[in-house]
Amino acid sequence: MSTHPTITAFERSPDGGRGLARDMRVRWALEEIGQRYDVRPVSFAAMREEAHRRLQPFRQIPTYEDGDVTLFETGAIVLHIAARHEGLLPADAAARARAIAWMFAAVGTVEPVIVDREAATYRERGKPWFERRLRAAEDRIRVRLNDLSLRLGGADWLDGDFSAGDLMMADVLRRLGRSDLLGGFPNLLAYVGRAEARPAFRRAFDAQRAFFGAGLAASKSTPAKEPSG
Amino acid sequence: MSTHPTITAFERSPDGGRGLARDMRVRWALEEIGQRYDVRPVSFAAMREEAHRRLQPFRQIPTYEDGDVTLFETGAIVLHIAARHEGLLPADAAARARAIAWMFAAVGTVEPVIVDREAATYRERGKPWFERRLRAAEDRIRVRLNDLSLRLGGADWLDGDFSAGDLMMADVLRRLGRSDLLGGFPNLLAYVGRAEARPAFRRAFDAQRAFFGAGLAASKSTPAKEPSG
Repeated sequence: MSTHPTITAFERSPDGGRGLARDMRVRWALEEIGQRYDVRPVSFAAMREEAHRRLQPFRQIPTYEDGDVTLFETGAIVLHIAARHEGLLPADAAARARAIAWMFAAVGTVEPVIVDREAATYRERGKPWFERRLRAAEDRIRVRLNDLSLRLGGADWLDGDFSAGDLMMADVLRRLGRSDLLGGFPNLLAYVGRAEARPAFRRAFDAQRAFFGAGLAASKSTPAKEPSG
Repeated sequence: MSTHPTITAFERSPDGGRGLARDMRVRWALEEIGQRYDVRPVSFAAMREEAHRRLQPFRQIPTYEDGDVTLFETGAIVLHIAARHEGLLPADAAARARAIAWMFAAVGTVEPVIVDREAATYRERGKPWFERRLRAAEDRIRVRLNDLSLRLGGADWLDGDFSAGDLMMADVLRRLGRSDLLGGFPNLLAYVGRAEARPAFRRAFDAQRAFFGAGLAASKSTPAKEPSG
């Protein structure tokens, strides 16, 4: 029996190895606590099959398996990891609850507006209303970024030391990719930069690039797909 | 010093007392564990002010204050409540982690597509593309509902006994309100019905109706606003 957790990831990188799919945040959390892990690739076809649906009812990646623990949803996976190891959640109960609130804010309040812009881009591009739809989606993103920027202010992290809340939020913001939406918020750009400079992030990033390996040249020329994971 | 937690709610019901705003799920969780609580109303104007932003950086309701614990995000609030009392999370560690995964799925995977339809409805109604935009938003909702319906199957709850995961998911589905989207999934309709039949739900529902009280007649005739909480 392996004592390593196993996660799933896309078989081929939908973003040319830029690490924007949701396995990245789980890899990063595992690197932060120094936990080795295995990665099982899942094809888009296999994601629809019963075996994967048992692990992930919404047919996404990543999933997490470790002994009798089987999980989906990156927030739940990262929280499970963070709760069982030092370093990703404060010891103080009130601060810990606040860090968890930032995890929920990342996936429930900030990520959805970013995903909506992606959904509009791959489903409505070319429609007569596309430009206006895209602007509306970007306005919704800016509202969230503005609120987040005001809260962060000049601090390094959202609430004291780096926590799983920052890990989730920074990874969600990374999903904006090469859009210039973050550019209007220098403190958020710097925040993401600080997160990406963490050695654990670098290790996770390099690991996903190595995982995709030779497939990268091919997937680079593929049109962007829904990063459903 | 009060020993009751205090939550915030809209000063006036945006849905005519149907309990579709997000304070409902926190009220419900508190009723499930038999915890009394106070409710502080917040006007739309006050939600933008610094005092509220300190509690809720994204200017939403509800918030939760209990002694030195101050929280936002309903997932985090309900998890905080559930983790400190019996009855809303399984004792077994693996089952507990799965219940938390359903909480994240509710707010991170199912609620966003429902909110997107609401956002389209109040921001893009009247535009030339509105009908097609609405259909696209509803298609995204049906994809999620179909996956959820397949997973639930003939079971009463998503994973064993009723948990905070069901509480969050059922309340998110309630947000579909009087749309006929749930109608295509009889097992999900029955699931929401079971949830709403729980005595704790009824108490919470009645409490929010009583809270809005005389304001209901007025707000019934008000056009639907963004339920930003």
